[in-house]
Amino acid sequence: MTLKQDTAILLLSCPDSRGIVASISNFIFAGNGNIIHSDQHTDFDSGTFFMRIEWELGGFNIPLGNIGEEFSKLASKFSMDFRLLFSNSVPRIAVFVSKFDHCLYDLLLKHKSGEIKAQIPIIISNHPDLKPVADYFGIEYRVFSLQDKPREDVEKEELGLLDSLSVDLVVLARYMQILSPAFIKHFPSRIINIHHSFLPAFVGAKPYHQAYRRGVKVIGATSHYVTEELDNGPIIDQDVLRVSHRDSLDDLICKGRELEKTVLTRAVKFHLENKTLVFGNKTVVFD
Amino acid sequence: MTLKQDTAILLLSCPDSRGIVASISNFIFAGNGNIIHSDQHTDFDSGTFFMRIEWELGGFNIPLGNIGEEFSKLASKFSMDFRLLFSNSVPRIAVFVSKFDHCLYDLLLKHKSGEIKAQIPIIISNHPDLKPVADYFGIEYRVFSLQDKPREDVEKEELGLLDSLSVDLVVLARYMQILSPAFIKHFPSRIINIHHSFLPAFVGAKPYHQAYRRGVKVIGATSHYVTEELDNGPIIDQDVLRVSHRDSLDDLICKGRELEKTVLTRAVKFHLENKTLVFGNKTVVFD
Amino acid sequence: MTLKQDTAILLLSCPDSRGIVASISNFIFAGNGNIIHSDQHTDFDSGTFFMRIEWELGGFNIPLGNIGEEFSKLASKFSMDFRLLFSNSVPRIAVFVSKFDHCLYDLLLKHKSGEIKAQIPIIISNHPDLKPVADYFGIEYRVFSLQDKPREDVEKEELGLLDSLSVDLVVLARYMQILSPAFIKHFPSRIINIHHSFLPAFVGAKPYHQAYRRGVKVIGATSHYVTEELDNGPIIDQDVLRVSHRDSLDDLICKGRELEKTVLTRAVKFHLENKTLVFGNKTVVFD
Amino acid sequence: MTLKQDTAILLLSCPDSRGIVASISNFIFAGNGNIIHSDQHTDFDSGTFFMRIEWELGGFNIPLGNIGEEFSKLASKFSMDFRLLFSNSVPRIAVFVSKFDHCLYDLLLKHKSGEIKAQIPIIISNHPDLKPVADYFGIEYRVFSLQDKPREDVEKEELGLLDSLSVDLVVLARYMQILSPAFIKHFPSRIINIHHSFLPAFVGAKPYHQAYRRGVKVIGATSHYVTEELDNGPIIDQDVLRVSHRDSLDDLICKGRELEKTVLTRAVKFHLENKTLVFGNKTVVFD
Repeated sequence: MTLKQDTAILLLSCPDSRGIVASISNFIFAGNGNIIHSDQHTDFDSGTFFMRIEWELGGFNIPLGNIGEEFSKLASKFSMDFRLLFSNSVPRIAVFVSKFDHCLYDLLLKHKSGEIKAQIPIIISNHPDLKPVADYFGIEYRVFSLQDKPREDVEKEELGLLDSLSVDLVVLARYMQILSPAFIKHFPSRIINIHHSFLPAFVGAKPYHQAYRRGVKVIGATSHYVTEELDNGPIIDQDVLRVSHRDSLDDLICKGRELEKTVLTRAVKFHLENKTLVFGNKTVVFD
Repeated sequence: MTLKQDTAILLLSCPDSRGIVASISNFIFAGNGNIIHSDQHTDFDSGTFFMRIEWELGGFNIPLGNIGEEFSKLASKFSMDFRLLFSNSVPRIAVFVSKFDHCLYDLLLKHKSGEIKAQIPIIISNHPDLKPVADYFGIEYRVFSLQDKPREDVEKEELGLLDSLSVDLVVLARYMQILSPAFIKHFPSRIINIHHSFLPAFVGAKPYHQAYRRGVKVIGATSHYVTEELDNGPIIDQDVLRVSHRDSLDDLICKGRELEKTVLTRAVKFHLENKTLVFGNKTVVFD
Repeated sequence: MTLKQDTAILLLSCPDSRGIVASISNFIFAGNGNIIHSDQHTDFDSGTFFMRIEWELGGFNIPLGNIGEEFSKLASKFSMDFRLLFSNSVPRIAVFVSKFDHCLYDLLLKHKSGEIKAQIPIIISNHPDLKPVADYFGIEYRVFSLQDKPREDVEKEELGLLDSLSVDLVVLARYMQILSPAFIKHFPSRIINIHHSFLPAFVGAKPYHQAYRRGVKVIGATSHYVTEELDNGPIIDQDVLRVSHRDSLDDLICKGRELEKTVLTRAVKFHLENKTLVFGNKTVVFD
Repeated sequence: MTLKQDTAILLLSCPDSRGIVASISNFIFAGNGNIIHSDQHTDFDSGTFFMRIEWELGGFNIPLGNIGEEFSKLASKFSMDFRLLFSNSVPRIAVFVSKFDHCLYDLLLKHKSGEIKAQIPIIISNHPDLKPVADYFGIEYRVFSLQDKPREDVEKEELGLLDSLSVDLVVLARYMQILSPAFIKHFPSRIINIHHSFLPAFVGAKPYHQAYRRGVKVIGATSHYVTEELDNGPIIDQDVLRVSHRDSLDDLICKGRELEKTVLTRAVKFHLENKTLVFGNKTVVFD
């Protein structure tokens, strides 16, 4: 979709009831807004309504700073959880890596080409290896070794740095460390991980080894929000590739790299475009 | 999506302007309707707005027979083209076949299982071969040979039969005859054909032969609305399969059958669920 | 691949060593055979060599009845496990079903069209529901209820019937019963099951329910040889489809049916064309 | 496939006849070679036999320099075209680019990671824009402007440079110029191009614009050997992605980039691993 104008985006969920769409579209129309996208979903099991609605800000006569407050009245009437976002605001990402560079390169190249619309003030790693990549793209690279200090202390420093940089989203681009519950709580539904299997198959370490042993005919990758339970957070995206007996373990690892970067980058883009909503342990992705 | 209630569906297009969504959702809310699905699209090139909106009829306080007329006022205000449909109305399909049975079986089996929600009062063919299939499923089968009479006369008889049966949709399930412009005009955007290539490649006769000669590495199938220009109508759905040098022409034909039936049945379902809108030579498919 | 002539097929595995291919191709050439297909694989982890080689019988000067014995000398030199098969022999299949008909229809329609080259002397079920399907295709249908007798006794009767019909392959086409170890032992690597998930995810009952709860973005199906451990036999084929939050549990089940039949039929064809070899808990599929 | 040893690879085609496989495998066995891969194909239409056979050089008792000559005797007996290659020889690639960097990055990153086993002594462009990319990867970058001189003269200089660098393969990584017949003749079946459509649909300029106008539901990319007829050379690989009415022209271009790089890199790898054979206007790809 090609837009010339800045837009506002409402992303919301609430108990389903009559009049929600009418109320929201009246709110926008009353302000002289032109809706350019709208997508909704009703989860009938739980009776929950989800919506993503986007309108042009040109000519909209509620000042930007007041829209949220104005909308709150409506939101409380319908017991909505909502987020208000503006297409011209630029989210800030911290990328965590270890030694593998393929997901990092994919993110940075698409950032450079403008496909990933965000700022990336920092790359954090437990190893110095990928510093040259960061240098090439002109991004600060910080090593936080987990060898010398307890993880708790290291994470505190990391969180301090992330907060000082106003980071909105943490992307684990094949970061081979487990984050503590405290760290995860700091970024609820704002840490995206890539796991190199089609979850829930092959949870945990060395999924390609597990897949090779099992003799599967497809391999996969899964991007998900990180929660306390390992590899069990809400799935954002998944994809697979066919393999055969001809593929060695090294072949699986090599082919899998393509999947990993595709599936991670897609999830990051969905998140940045405010297309994802978490409910329970699932996601709604308004793609 | 699992629905227990009957619903109304509005499918519409109009010049884009402010207030359309608000007006429509107000119309539904004023009647005490609960919107359960809504999807929209704006074509920025032409400034055209498209919408599909569905609401529950339980408790809706405009009588069914009056909804269309009531809505017309709104429609003319925004210069809308619209169709009003009810989930409990059952469209009527005529299936045209020649000698291949795979698409026919797929349609009839999914009709039998309830996946295709329609009535199929008639199967029409230029050959008697598939009568036993029709018999098994308890559907009338009529042969209209094109050997003895001019096509014009045959089509007149066919149209008479279709009209007498109140047929809404004609499905060409590998029907190997070309329809006249007069026939096509009788069912505008209501004749669905399956072409056994990924159009616009391999237009016309024997597309698998053409694909085999060209040495392609994927083969495809395309379902489209029939227009006067051969194989050039608005595309509803397409899909492809990988092939290799190992595949003989017969292999392409065999593998292609799976594609053909999948892509045709999907298109028929989209149409029956009122998810397709034609604009220019393209479709909007609210899947 | 289009063949006019009858062929012989050797399917073999043995410890890898020099001279295997030369010896086998010399054996065929000495008999004046023309090799038309040959595929091989070496599993470097275990040092195992696998081969499928096919040659035309026209002009081959070893009588059919003697080829196996003649080849045995070579086979024992290299410690081969081998199977010798002839393209003009027609394997015999028993299909087991419960109440779902989609996999059964796919098998029977492809059998009817000649795509599945086999005889199907019997369909066995624990329910009478699908008898009309069997009748339409002119195949005997036998109900073995598991309500009245112990499974052990029922299986004995079934095995007696299968043996009396010289059944080579048992296909479980959504058969909702677990077979005993004794039954399985009777058909080693000759029972093919379809499981409606991408194994090893969602083993056991109601995999679509499990997938729906987990919020996956792809669903899958897996065909495998049946072994004693439930859903853990050697995988022959797998495939997946994308789904989204819009898909209800019923949608998963409906979309999954397409996968199930595709993946089961593909596995049956691979087996019948003598393209599968089991080693350990994996398969080599010479597709 | 994980190999520790150096190997020899024979890639050949000849009129089909009895004894080819036996003769070749005897040749290898006589030299004490261990065959680790073998794949063959018979084109029954033309009666042509194709083979790729690979054996370990460890213990092979014909000196490397003599293998070709020794094999020639066999080759002439069967009227074979053959190429003899060694896994330890490293082909040399020239990459041609214009202004788009996505295919170039994909090639260079996979070259850096060792996935593309080749030397890349030169990147040639008609624009200076991508020099920084070449610099980052430490590869020489030469601009040959087509503004100031006739194409004929420019190509002569380019060919001189390529010859001086002993370039084996030319990869057109979204190079937006047409090569002359003379240039193409210099590298028969050794120039690989990526075209951004599923050929033969949308030949020529601006295929995404053509696809957008036609309203297709899949877009594709095609890698092929370059021949004199534009976009009509033997296809090596193709792939596609689903799109919808929601995708603007810019979306097609953006999504297409992923396809282009995947399909180009796959073709380059097939070629470098000596898995491709051209016959007529098609390819055999022993993947």
